[in-house]
Amino acid sequence: VAERLRVLYEIEGDEATAHALAHGIALEQSVELPAAAIPPAVVAARVPGEVESIEPAGADRWQAWVSYHLDTTGFDTMQLLNVLFGNTSMQTRVALLDADLPPALLAAWPGPRVGIPGLRARLGAAFRALTCTALKPVGYAPSQFASLVERFARAGIDVIKEDHGIANQRFAPFAERVRLCQEAIARAAQATGRRALYVPNLSGPPATLRAHLELAHAAGVEMVMLAPMLCGLPTFAEIAAQAAQADIALLAHCALAGTPRIAADFLLGRLYRLIGADAVIFVNHGGRFGWPPDQVRRLATNLRAPWGNLRPAFPVPAGGMTTDRVAEMIDFYGPDTLLLISGALYPDNDGLEVRARAFVEAAHAPDRERM
Amino acid sequence: VAERLRVLYEIEGDEATAHALAHGIALEQSVELPAAAIPPAVVAARVPGEVESIEPAGADRWQAWVSYHLDTTGFDTMQLLNVLFGNTSMQTRVALLDADLPPALLAAWPGPRVGIPGLRARLGAAFRALTCTALKPVGYAPSQFASLVERFARAGIDVIKEDHGIANQRFAPFAERVRLCQEAIARAAQATGRRALYVPNLSGPPATLRAHLELAHAAGVEMVMLAPMLCGLPTFAEIAAQAAQADIALLAHCALAGTPRIAADFLLGRLYRLIGADAVIFVNHGGRFGWPPDQVRRLATNLRAPWGNLRPAFPVPAGGMTTDRVAEMIDFYGPDTLLLISGALYPDNDGLEVRARAFVEAAHAPDRERM
Repeated sequence: VAERLRVLYEIEGDEATAHALAHGIALEQSVELPAAAIPPAVVAARVPGEVESIEPAGADRWQAWVSYHLDTTGFDTMQLLNVLFGNTSMQTRVALLDADLPPALLAAWPGPRVGIPGLRARLGAAFRALTCTALKPVGYAPSQFASLVERFARAGIDVIKEDHGIANQRFAPFAERVRLCQEAIARAAQATGRRALYVPNLSGPPATLRAHLELAHAAGVEMVMLAPMLCGLPTFAEIAAQAAQADIALLAHCALAGTPRIAADFLLGRLYRLIGADAVIFVNHGGRFGWPPDQVRRLATNLRAPWGNLRPAFPVPAGGMTTDRVAEMIDFYGPDTLLLISGALYPDNDGLEVRARAFVEAAHAPDRERM
Repeated sequence: VAERLRVLYEIEGDEATAHALAHGIALEQSVELPAAAIPPAVVAARVPGEVESIEPAGADRWQAWVSYHLDTTGFDTMQLLNVLFGNTSMQTRVALLDADLPPALLAAWPGPRVGIPGLRARLGAAFRALTCTALKPVGYAPSQFASLVERFARAGIDVIKEDHGIANQRFAPFAERVRLCQEAIARAAQATGRRALYVPNLSGPPATLRAHLELAHAAGVEMVMLAPMLCGLPTFAEIAAQAAQADIALLAHCALAGTPRIAADFLLGRLYRLIGADAVIFVNHGGRFGWPPDQVRRLATNLRAPWGNLRPAFPVPAGGMTTDRVAEMIDFYGPDTLLLISGALYPDNDGLEVRARAFVEAAHAPDRERM
């Protein structure tokens, strides 16, 4: 039997509606024709989607598995997205929950090139939870960001990324900012003997993303950030291939990913890993956005669980996190986590290093206990 | 007073929640810092977002205008999207409704390069509603699509686009398909003395989109289709610039655009026009998806209304449309509309031309009545 791409949808409605919608989805996402109008040869080749099962999943809720011919995906990111949810995204009673990519399809994507082991090797941190913070705010000049980089790096933060709102504005143009910040991280490394990563945020049309990645590489940058839903997942995948050539790791940001009809654990946990994210920022439960605990747990599981030959990627829970939640977050996510605390380190300029050090100590503590 | 980008959000909750969320959005979408932690110089430069008004909009519903410093957008598509809704897309109680781009910002985008007047000129149709159909199904070989193109063109259809699910699969690889279909449309034009446009669907990573656009141009293609939410809006904007060089019109498809937290009339009506769509396919009210009549009316208005120096773009209502709705659709949308009927023309192969001719006649009828 030919392997097929199997996709899980949640459908709202009574049983008859669920069956009608599931069969509608199967055709909509493939041949876009009523069953009676599909040419027999196309049916014989099993090109139309097929409903595999419909099970109840609560009051007026159903879960339906629909399968598609692998060749309809073109083995490409843009068309995979289209098969998964293109027109059906406009069905207000349907959500995309998950998908099962058979090995022949999965093999079309290399996934994370650096992943958890590669990032740990770069940072010389074999077991413990890693720390991450963000450069803020937009409006600062490059030299101000560089000063923050040096202070955070000296305080022991592992990954110092830019806010996703720091793009290529006149306040701090990309080229000058990256040069100064990368110099700052090198200075700090020389002073402390400890490595940290400065992570600039890429923003712009594909040609700019490519040029800026090249520029960052030339400056010695080893990791960059990019938001897949802002640039488009196919563009992210293309940048991931270029980054791999330069041995640059990719941090995916969750901006614009808050679509209630695609499960976040699937979009950020599976698709972002598939297209090459080495670490994925998402909103932790209990923060200022508050995705449910079950969902963020599945998201983190999807990023790290065995999946074909794909390397595991770091979950980066974020969104209003504070140092007093570090122990709880490590309990919840385990030590293979990149903990992101940013706004909470900033309330006063003078206290920045003290707060950053307290964050670093809290993150390292469970590791010390285990040794 | 400096002009600012003004953005309209809908917020769900009681009055206190609405005020807290609106002020939270203003900071989240700009400096991402609590008010107390924003450096005074950044405040003085008015970089943080500012809540301009909060008005009731129904039971536990509020509409808030929030304004942003123009420079935070970087005058670029990706960062504009980010400022409009990046992290706030993850606030389950907030929707993005609209935005007011002052002239200095709007001038950064050329909008449609061909637009309604250009497409009318290309098709030699000055006043009447235009007709559009789709090539189906995925699974067909290039020669089968070419045969459909010729039959539809001979029947008088103006715009013959491919289904958005026809990408670059092994069934009908792009290069061969485009060559055969463009030859078919040329043959039909010679036979009928009437022009029609064959519109191939672009799919793939940015490098493939660029290469395929070039290939289509070399084959004589004058319009291509691309789905902004699948490829990413910044990529669409970049392809629009390349298409403009080749004088190729762009048809935007609504795949993956069904996000309930961005108003469709804003996303497809304003943003798609901004980034260069000459015509925009969306789901008509009363079809198999069913966006509300008010929303699709606003969407069509946004595509055609005066807006800076931007050319108007054709609305393309679709999604289960039938010939018996043509008169009603022209009444509803007016004649500056590209009517898309596809599945309904296909029920049996022999009847295809008859059905296509009936569609064309229905679309031309109001024009004849006016003369």
